[in-house]
Amino acid sequence: MTSDTSAHLLALDWGTSSLRAFLMQDARIVDSRQSGHGIQHLPAAGVPGFEQAFAELAGDWVRQWPTLPVVAGGMVGSAQGWREAPYVRCPADIRALAQHPVRVPSGLGPEIVIAPGVLFDEPGMLPDVMRGEEIQIAGALSENRPWAARCCMVLPGTHSKWVQVQEGKILRFATYMTGELFAVLCQHSILGRLLPEDRSALREPNPEAFELGLSEARHSRAGDVSHQLFATRTLGLTGRLPHDALADYLSGLLIGSELVSGLARAREQEAVPLVMIGEPALCARYAEALRFLGQPLAAVFGNTAALGLWNFAVAAGVLLPAN
Amino acid sequence: MTSDTSAHLLALDWGTSSLRAFLMQDARIVDSRQSGHGIQHLPAAGVPGFEQAFAELAGDWVRQWPTLPVVAGGMVGSAQGWREAPYVRCPADIRALAQHPVRVPSGLGPEIVIAPGVLFDEPGMLPDVMRGEEIQIAGALSENRPWAARCCMVLPGTHSKWVQVQEGKILRFATYMTGELFAVLCQHSILGRLLPEDRSALREPNPEAFELGLSEARHSRAGDVSHQLFATRTLGLTGRLPHDALADYLSGLLIGSELVSGLARAREQEAVPLVMIGEPALCARYAEALRFLGQPLAAVFGNTAALGLWNFAVAAGVLLPAN
Repeated sequence: MTSDTSAHLLALDWGTSSLRAFLMQDARIVDSRQSGHGIQHLPAAGVPGFEQAFAELAGDWVRQWPTLPVVAGGMVGSAQGWREAPYVRCPADIRALAQHPVRVPSGLGPEIVIAPGVLFDEPGMLPDVMRGEEIQIAGALSENRPWAARCCMVLPGTHSKWVQVQEGKILRFATYMTGELFAVLCQHSILGRLLPEDRSALREPNPEAFELGLSEARHSRAGDVSHQLFATRTLGLTGRLPHDALADYLSGLLIGSELVSGLARAREQEAVPLVMIGEPALCARYAEALRFLGQPLAAVFGNTAALGLWNFAVAAGVLLPAN
Repeated sequence: MTSDTSAHLLALDWGTSSLRAFLMQDARIVDSRQSGHGIQHLPAAGVPGFEQAFAELAGDWVRQWPTLPVVAGGMVGSAQGWREAPYVRCPADIRALAQHPVRVPSGLGPEIVIAPGVLFDEPGMLPDVMRGEEIQIAGALSENRPWAARCCMVLPGTHSKWVQVQEGKILRFATYMTGELFAVLCQHSILGRLLPEDRSALREPNPEAFELGLSEARHSRAGDVSHQLFATRTLGLTGRLPHDALADYLSGLLIGSELVSGLARAREQEAVPLVMIGEPALCARYAEALRFLGQPLAAVFGNTAALGLWNFAVAAGVLLPAN
């Protein structure tokens, strides 16, 4: 990108483990960069760490376009972030988020406008929170997508989200700890003992083991999962599965359990169709699990944070009129 | 105990984290000792560690009664134990266990006769294993207890066991990872972040938080628990529960989930009444949860390993006839 190209927005998708920066023009990404400086992996503690991470990744962009507006979403607005942007309550859409931005000096000139997260908190129901996913959802709802009127957005990950969307608003949602359970059980429980060292969740899976986990989840009843988890060990001890397939059983069981519960919830809420947003390899695994359960999937998106942050910037009125 | 008292058996309950030794006479404990030298906490690696742990705890007893038979049960017979005693398959009773003992030199003179564990492994069902609980069950089934003909034995713990007993035999059982899930989630997941440092599972609980967890479990459907777990965090974030009560919600949710699943299984198997064996404070917490769910409990036992090991020694024919 040369200096005569005009840029309209610098958008930061700032999560727990990574920081992504997008240079945008007319709702399109014209350049992007990424670093490992998520809020839990900053180069220094506290505010200097945020300033340094921002300057290292995007300092030259800011020097080139000193008046460029900067917006940010994700864990950067959490209590452990750069500055806390208190949650907006459901029902929430991008306009509601844009009414509650929080501003922080970037250390380089421009302020950074941080988007809030979303809170679901109704009497008699378990509360829930999201931070970052609401931006991804705003991106996926752009351009009058057919499902903006009504859908169930599924965002698989460390803390998967199942989100009931209606008339472009987040009405209600539920977090499933699927990814974190997988990691914690492999690394810190007895289930990890029989697993080979290379147990990346996203290597090529053993399909039979993955489907055995899905099948267990499909036929399970309330509370069964804590028993079915233990089979990650006993299927190996008895030689029913090779040790290098045990993690796939565990993955199938945990993903399957999330799907069985999430789909029941979506049916109750009449939240259809299913739309998925997330990292491609993980989405492919979830899509395979949905096929196994006979469940159609309307669309799959990769990272839609940049477009969501653009929409946030427009709604918050921070885009430069001159651009 | 003086040297003129006669002793008939030295029984070792040797688990992962502790070693208990019982000096027995006519099925009664006449003396007992305990050390922290479970098989994962030995004073030295390998066989010398087992020999040293045994000698330190019971060497003077062996010197006093050099011909005393010695039996052991629990993880000491696992693949990571002193010598592996391969699993006996269901249906299994104390006689079946006694037909497959494994002997190991103690390093002090007498051999140690190690009891095997039990395996459930039927086609189309998840396999399961136990090691140590079968000895506790043998103790609780002694003396023609009314429930020996038919019952469901519940052994709460790190890996809780729900055991269908019929005609004195273990027909089938299921492990629930309840205690390990609680520990691993508190120590290694995001759920631990809001918990105060002192989060012993067995301190005086906050009854409302514990019952909220039980209530969530009671009203849950398949797969819901991975969502309900996350509320250990969000109930704190939203101020619905004080931070020092969050572990009680988690405990109630995990114990409740185990009970809901285990009770459904017991009903199907017509495995009644419920009989519980375990550490008194933990059993009290489970009993409270069962009351909340309106479920009667026929009996609660503390550690019945000594009596179970006595029965094993009798069945294995290792007791000295002269005694």
